Amino acid sequence: MFRNQYDTDVTTWSPAGRLFQVEYAMEAVKQGSAAVGLRSKTHAVLAAVNKAASDLASHQRKLFRADQHVGVAIAGLTADGRVLSRFLRNECINHSFVYESPLPVARLVVQLADKAQVCTQRSWKRPYGVGLLVAGLDETGAHLYYNCPSGNYFEYQAFAIGSRSQAAKTFLERRFEAYDGYSREELIKDALFAIKETLQGEKLTSQLCTVAIVGEGEAFHIIDQQTIQDYIDAMELSTGGPEEEAAAEAPPSAEAQGGGEGASSEPAPMDI
Amino acid sequence: MFRNQYDTDVTTWSPAGRLFQVEYAMEAVKQGSAAVGLRSKTHAVLAAVNKAASDLASHQRKLFRADQHVGVAIAGLTADGRVLSRFLRNECINHSFVYESPLPVARLVVQLADKAQVCTQRSWKRPYGVGLLVAGLDETGAHLYYNCPSGNYFEYQAFAIGSRSQAAKTFLERRFEAYDGYSREELIKDALFAIKETLQGEKLTSQLCTVAIVGEGEAFHIIDQQTIQDYIDAMELSTGGPEEEAAAEAPPSAEAQGGGEGASSEPAPMDI
Amino acid sequence: MFRNQYDTDVTTWSPAGRLFQVEYAMEAVKQGSAAVGLRSKTHAVLAAVNKAASDLASHQRKLFRADQHVGVAIAGLTADGRVLSRFLRNECINHSFVYESPLPVARLVVQLADKAQVCTQRSWKRPYGVGLLVAGLDETGAHLYYNCPSGNYFEYQAFAIGSRSQAAKTFLERRFEAYDGYSREELIKDALFAIKETLQGEKLTSQLCTVAIVGEGEAFHIIDQQTIQDYIDAMELSTGGPEEEAAAEAPPSAEAQGGGEGASSEPAPMDI
Amino acid sequence: MFRNQYDTDVTTWSPAGRLFQVEYAMEAVKQGSAAVGLRSKTHAVLAAVNKAASDLASHQRKLFRADQHVGVAIAGLTADGRVLSRFLRNECINHSFVYESPLPVARLVVQLADKAQVCTQRSWKRPYGVGLLVAGLDETGAHLYYNCPSGNYFEYQAFAIGSRSQAAKTFLERRFEAYDGYSREELIKDALFAIKETLQGEKLTSQLCTVAIVGEGEAFHIIDQQTIQDYIDAMELSTGGPEEEAAAEAPPSAEAQGGGEGASSEPAPMDI
Amino acid sequence: MFRNQYDTDVTTWSPAGRLFQVEYAMEAVKQGSAAVGLRSKTHAVLAAVNKAASDLASHQRKLFRADQHVGVAIAGLTADGRVLSRFLRNECINHSFVYESPLPVARLVVQLADKAQVCTQRSWKRPYGVGLLVAGLDETGAHLYYNCPSGNYFEYQAFAIGSRSQAAKTFLERRFEAYDGYSREELIKDALFAIKETLQGEKLTSQLCTVAIVGEGEAFHIIDQQTIQDYIDAMELSTGGPEEEAAAEAPPSAEAQGGGEGASSEPAPMDI
Amino acid sequence: MFRNQYDTDVTTWSPAGRLFQVEYAMEAVKQGSAAVGLRSKTHAVLAAVNKAASDLASHQRKLFRADQHVGVAIAGLTADGRVLSRFLRNECINHSFVYESPLPVARLVVQLADKAQVCTQRSWKRPYGVGLLVAGLDETGAHLYYNCPSGNYFEYQAFAIGSRSQAAKTFLERRFEAYDGYSREELIKDALFAIKETLQGEKLTSQLCTVAIVGEGEAFHIIDQQTIQDYIDAMELSTGGPEEEAAAEAPPSAEAQGGGEGASSEPAPMDI
Amino acid sequence: MFRNQYDTDVTTWSPAGRLFQVEYAMEAVKQGSAAVGLRSKTHAVLAAVNKAASDLASHQRKLFRADQHVGVAIAGLTADGRVLSRFLRNECINHSFVYESPLPVARLVVQLADKAQVCTQRSWKRPYGVGLLVAGLDETGAHLYYNCPSGNYFEYQAFAIGSRSQAAKTFLERRFEAYDGYSREELIKDALFAIKETLQGEKLTSQLCTVAIVGEGEAFHIIDQQTIQDYIDAMELSTGGPEEEAAAEAPPSAEAQGGGEGASSEPAPMDI
Repeated sequence: MFRNQYDTDVTTWSPAGRLFQVEYAMEAVKQGSAAVGLRSKTHAVLAAVNKAASDLASHQRKLFRADQHVGVAIAGLTADGRVLSRFLRNECINHSFVYESPLPVARLVVQLADKAQVCTQRSWKRPYGVGLLVAGLDETGAHLYYNCPSGNYFEYQAFAIGSRSQAAKTFLERRFEAYDGYSREELIKDALFAIKETLQGEKLTSQLCTVAIVGEGEAFHIIDQQTIQDYIDAMELSTGGPEEEAAAEAPPSAEAQGGGEGASSEPAPMDI
Repeated sequence: MFRNQYDTDVTTWSPAGRLFQVEYAMEAVKQGSAAVGLRSKTHAVLAAVNKAASDLASHQRKLFRADQHVGVAIAGLTADGRVLSRFLRNECINHSFVYESPLPVARLVVQLADKAQVCTQRSWKRPYGVGLLVAGLDETGAHLYYNCPSGNYFEYQAFAIGSRSQAAKTFLERRFEAYDGYSREELIKDALFAIKETLQGEKLTSQLCTVAIVGEGEAFHIIDQQTIQDYIDAMELSTGGPEEEAAAEAPPSAEAQGGGEGASSEPAPMDI
Repeated sequence: MFRNQYDTDVTTWSPAGRLFQVEYAMEAVKQGSAAVGLRSKTHAVLAAVNKAASDLASHQRKLFRADQHVGVAIAGLTADGRVLSRFLRNECINHSFVYESPLPVARLVVQLADKAQVCTQRSWKRPYGVGLLVAGLDETGAHLYYNCPSGNYFEYQAFAIGSRSQAAKTFLERRFEAYDGYSREELIKDALFAIKETLQGEKLTSQLCTVAIVGEGEAFHIIDQQTIQDYIDAMELSTGGPEEEAAAEAPPSAEAQGGGEGASSEPAPMDI
Repeated sequence: MFRNQYDTDVTTWSPAGRLFQVEYAMEAVKQGSAAVGLRSKTHAVLAAVNKAASDLASHQRKLFRADQHVGVAIAGLTADGRVLSRFLRNECINHSFVYESPLPVARLVVQLADKAQVCTQRSWKRPYGVGLLVAGLDETGAHLYYNCPSGNYFEYQAFAIGSRSQAAKTFLERRFEAYDGYSREELIKDALFAIKETLQGEKLTSQLCTVAIVGEGEAFHIIDQQTIQDYIDAMELSTGGPEEEAAAEAPPSAEAQGGGEGASSEPAPMDI
Repeated sequence: MFRNQYDTDVTTWSPAGRLFQVEYAMEAVKQGSAAVGLRSKTHAVLAAVNKAASDLASHQRKLFRADQHVGVAIAGLTADGRVLSRFLRNECINHSFVYESPLPVARLVVQLADKAQVCTQRSWKRPYGVGLLVAGLDETGAHLYYNCPSGNYFEYQAFAIGSRSQAAKTFLERRFEAYDGYSREELIKDALFAIKETLQGEKLTSQLCTVAIVGEGEAFHIIDQQTIQDYIDAMELSTGGPEEEAAAEAPPSAEAQGGGEGASSEPAPMDI
Repeated sequence: MFRNQYDTDVTTWSPAGRLFQVEYAMEAVKQGSAAVGLRSKTHAVLAAVNKAASDLASHQRKLFRADQHVGVAIAGLTADGRVLSRFLRNECINHSFVYESPLPVARLVVQLADKAQVCTQRSWKRPYGVGLLVAGLDETGAHLYYNCPSGNYFEYQAFAIGSRSQAAKTFLERRFEAYDGYSREELIKDALFAIKETLQGEKLTSQLCTVAIVGEGEAFHIIDQQTIQDYIDAMELSTGGPEEEAAAEAPPSAEAQGGGEGASSEPAPMDI
Repeated sequence: MFRNQYDTDVTTWSPAGRLFQVEYAMEAVKQGSAAVGLRSKTHAVLAAVNKAASDLASHQRKLFRADQHVGVAIAGLTADGRVLSRFLRNECINHSFVYESPLPVARLVVQLADKAQVCTQRSWKRPYGVGLLVAGLDETGAHLYYNCPSGNYFEYQAFAIGSRSQAAKTFLERRFEAYDGYSREELIKDALFAIKETLQGEKLTSQLCTVAIVGEGEAFHIIDQQTIQDYIDAMELSTGGPEEEAAAEAPPSAEAQGGGEGASSEPAPMDI
């Protein structure tokens, strides 16, 4: 294992101008289960692999709603992610209360990044060990950001984080240029394809992943499991991968046809 | 013993993105005496092995009531567990006072996890060395959670923690899918079977374990020792293990027939 | 001497999930002079070996009254014990003032344990180096607890701590099952026998030990030295040990016959 | 790698009177993507290389407006730069509010330097890992400063920071003496030439850089991408480099002819 | 020199349950110049060896009055002793002011011990490096206590601390049983004999020691030097040591005959 | 490089009674660019070498006005010097405001030294890495002080600090005894000669140095560059060095003849 | 160089009960330039060697007035000494203001010692590196004390501290017994002889030393240089040293004959 004397304190610079503790915290993100995000001009979709700690457990939540118009997917230390999700929720609520309008996604992302930066400059803290994909919709359209433990953030058309996310990124890089014009159904399907890439041959089922969406006329919500299974089944009918199945129809689920009525999956209209 | 320079401070990341101190604290849970939990749609049962420090001592309490509708079983450092139990009790009381309704179990679990997370990010603290099985009933039914020192929590149908809990988990994994429909008596019996698995051949007696239950119409309470002994005696009549004794009747104890009158064991009706 | 890198800080976990500093503090208890405690349903007796620092010194106090209904015996660092005794005294006084009733023993014990737990989780403190036997009487009868540096506590029928306490524990384990029905005189005698066990052949005299009692109609007080010497003399008439001297009469001291009139030893009636 | 015992603490002097942690932080600046600044008597221009983290990401912002009359370009840790940019923005706002006039650039720069100096003298902090080029206009004309992690600042006619900035500095050193009399268009062109020097043969496009300007009658703003592309195209018509293209005309873009109408690029008049 | 890794921090336990820093501080007491104390039922006497830092200096004070009824002799770090003496003085004054009665000696000693204990449990402090002999008179008679750096205290009939105090302790152990009935003159003489034992053959003179007394009808005060010299001269007339000189008369000094009139030595009547 | 275990903490004494961190900080002063100061009975002059960080930068300020009657020249860490200069300015302003008279130079120097001393006795700080020459005029005439990182200060007739200051000191030592009677022009010329000594053969120009003066009827101000060039030119006419050019006339600049009219150089009358 | 693991922290005891950091700080006193003090019943004289940092500097002040009736001479870290001198001045002023009488010298010395003691028991401080000779006059006559870094203080008839003070001490030890009856002139002369002893053959001149006096009818003040030179000249007329020159007359200076009229040297009458 690489060793040096500059890597045990978050406030110590290496001679080459690096903060090793921050870099190590970013490794924790790579060990979390994978999450992907992608967006069109009007919709943003997040998807995460469900990894249960044992057969007896339900999986841990990886997708969190921050407000009607924004939500996050996390990879890394779940406990840190939960704390940051609540921070986002509070920021959104406070902004709504004061300004009577939703907090623009870009501003929310900056506030999140600032909170993370502080942890990289105080000797009695550690950097958060979690990465967050933030998907949201505001007056300037749909957005996707990645906030990392260093306090940096990046805007993306599509991105993947967590373990084996490289395969998903490779898939997304081949296709992201067309995403701006995608329908919500197309975004969901590509999210599922990207998730599948991270499974290394394991069969994708709706138990294995969670998908959330936010978009015009549709508040951030988790899509119900049956609808996801319908998408997966439709994807498998079309054999050759996404490229070949462009002509395949949208899955005939209720959701795809206008609104699933399930408690957790209906595209809740935004109260704006 | 494995040694490295990144494992003596809770705020130091290893180059591979791990927090060793948090992982070591989770080892403390494995050294506590075993505890199991399981739930149906309407009831949740916790059971713990009683391990007295010496013949002269009564055993330490491993099961704590947090509120009428929720309680915990702990494994690991008892002193840490006691402190966290009191935290849970206060959270419940404060919520009841303000909202005049019981605190939903899921929210209680998050607050507990957040308290644990803080201890993993401050240099002058250590992570709690205790795991908690939280069993409770709220409007969405019975729940079972496991909160661990890292600040993570998981929802389970059934789970076991503490020393030699692997045997109990193996037992539970074979049977948990049917638990949703179990009666309270069936849950108690499976809890006892699971506890027995952790004893490594030692004979199960009612002195050796404590069992608590919460469910519809029944506040969280410790089941009295005689009732437990009756269950154990009934279990042993049916020789081959739980699979074979499905037809065996419920133990003929007063409790099983509607309510033990003992001070500590009667299924106290909830004051809601 | 066993060495490792995880044992110099109270907030550092070892890879095996142990807190060495807490374990080392518990060693300090083993080095203190011995103390024993035992209880019937109605009385609890504490006894401690008097070990003077030199011939010139009076011995240090090892028994402290916390309130009319409760007192402690300590083993380990006397200075830590004194600080904790005062804490107990304050808790009792404050409770009496607010609730106009004595603090239940079990609650007092928990508050003491919590105070100790805090010292095991703050980097700028050390665990207390003292064990306390807490003997008290409340509405639920007589109680005996052992509070140790880890923040744990245990309820006992009878227990011994401090140097060479193993011999006393062996003695008590042979006899404790009958203690619930013992008279106060029988408890005192067994306390003296247990103390004698820790002396390794040294002759027991009333100078060598202090005995305190609390029970129904009798506030916590130190028994006067002459009364103890009478008990000892009576014990020695019966030669073969406690088993054989069951028929021996109670010592003919004034105290045994209803109340010693000495300033410090009379069984002071409780002001309840 | 050079090692010594004086370089892990920001408050430790080396025997030679150096503060290594401050010097290491300045290395972080050299690793950021390049930024250049230059000024005439009336205008100041900042330009930065756009380096996206991946094909999927948009690039991170390197140019920030602090107030109508001043802005910064950063190189190094983006998160630190963002925090300092906000500090600048707050200082400007507070000054305007109290004095009803813009904060002179020189005073702003000193306040920024003082904030950085504090981080070099407190043991629980680390120096900021970012360098800032501050460009602004006040009553004494246009100014360009460089603030570095040590808490030092320098006034420049033209300067470049970040990775491969040496080539840009060499370019600027040959030409800076004439900059006082440059027009805004000439400044922008030399900024682009300087940026090109840092690209090591990579073709300069408007996607690869961002340019901002502040000057008389023109608030600090980012110049729109099309305008920049027009400048770049014009630069390439003139083949031999800046020296030979002195006669080449200004690019025929709307901006160059008096004001681009694009939302983000129009030289917004200052509200003074 | 004995070395181990557990002895540089006051809050670190050794594996054997020892606090080395506290033990080391107690070594400082052994290095101070010797002090002795002894008491009858009605009087307590303190004596200290005067050790001047050089021929040019007067010796440092080792005896301090805390109140009319109590004073101390110190051995170890004089500066620490002075600070603790003032603490005692303040405690006495505050008690007198509030309760209009002198602070009982035993309570004063406990407050002193508590102040010392705190220094053994805080990482940013060190234990005091001084031992104190506390001599006082209250309603329960004359008392002598020894307070040591560990926060412990012991009641003594007679005791000696400081360098070469072992010889004095040996002397005192042979004679202390008779001290309860001693007259004030006899106590002073035995104090001088004990001091002489610590001098290792050096001739005892009144310049070499200071003696203080407190007793019934006599406030704590330093006995004047001439009176002490008279005692010494009388002691030497009787050649064989204290045993043989029992018949020798009290020294014919004014003090011994009822009250020295010197400003500092007259047995000042207590203002009670 | 010399190494020892006592030199990494400002609060650690070496066995020889030295504070190495303070000594190392004083090395930082030797690395700054040179500054000289000298004074007659009525005037004090400061001069500093201008060292620009690069050709593109203006040089950093080394001379600061604290008040109308006092100013400083710094050598070492510029950021530290700036912070201390502001401290001086505040002290002067506050004093003027309260007392309506200028702060005597000697008192200002003590306050500066005290601020530096504090940094040598607190573990979480570092000593300032800057030396200051303080030149001022008060009721007792002109003064020159040197304040160093240790918290010491010295009054001088003439002094030089910074890199290669030894040559300047040698020059000044040969001539300082006559300085009390010097005219302001003579002081300026000797300041320039001393600065020249530190240049090691580099040709002295007015770009290379800054000179400030304070004296009777003349507030502290920087002398304008043209005037300095005139002095330099005059110095070079007289070839052999200062000794030979005593007869050379004062430079025929406006300033020398009664007052330069330049905005920054006129000997501003003091508002007293 | 002597090394051990117990000497880098002021709060760490060595196994032998020593505080090395305090001892090291006392070494700093030995490195300061020498100072001597001596007193009769009515006068106290302080003298210090003047050691200028360079030919260009005036020497640093080593003698400070604290109040009309008391002053100090320092050896060691001048900056620490200055801080402590101001502390003394403040204590004197506050006492005078409250009690309308001068602060007794002994009490002032204790307050100074307490301030020093605190620095030996807090981990974030260091002991002061300065020794102080305190000379004063109060109702009990003239006094001379030595306060050292450990928080100790000693009363002396005569003493010397600082580099090469051993020779002065040897001189003083031969003569101090007669000092009580000395006249002020005799005290000054012996102070000068003692200072001369520390010069190791260097010729004593009035430039090389400063002398201060306080006594009956004479406030603490520095004796003017000419008067000192007169004393020195007189001393040298008498060749063989003080022993032989007892018959030599007092120097015929104005001061010696009743009062020098110089601003700084006249024996200012005390305003009491």
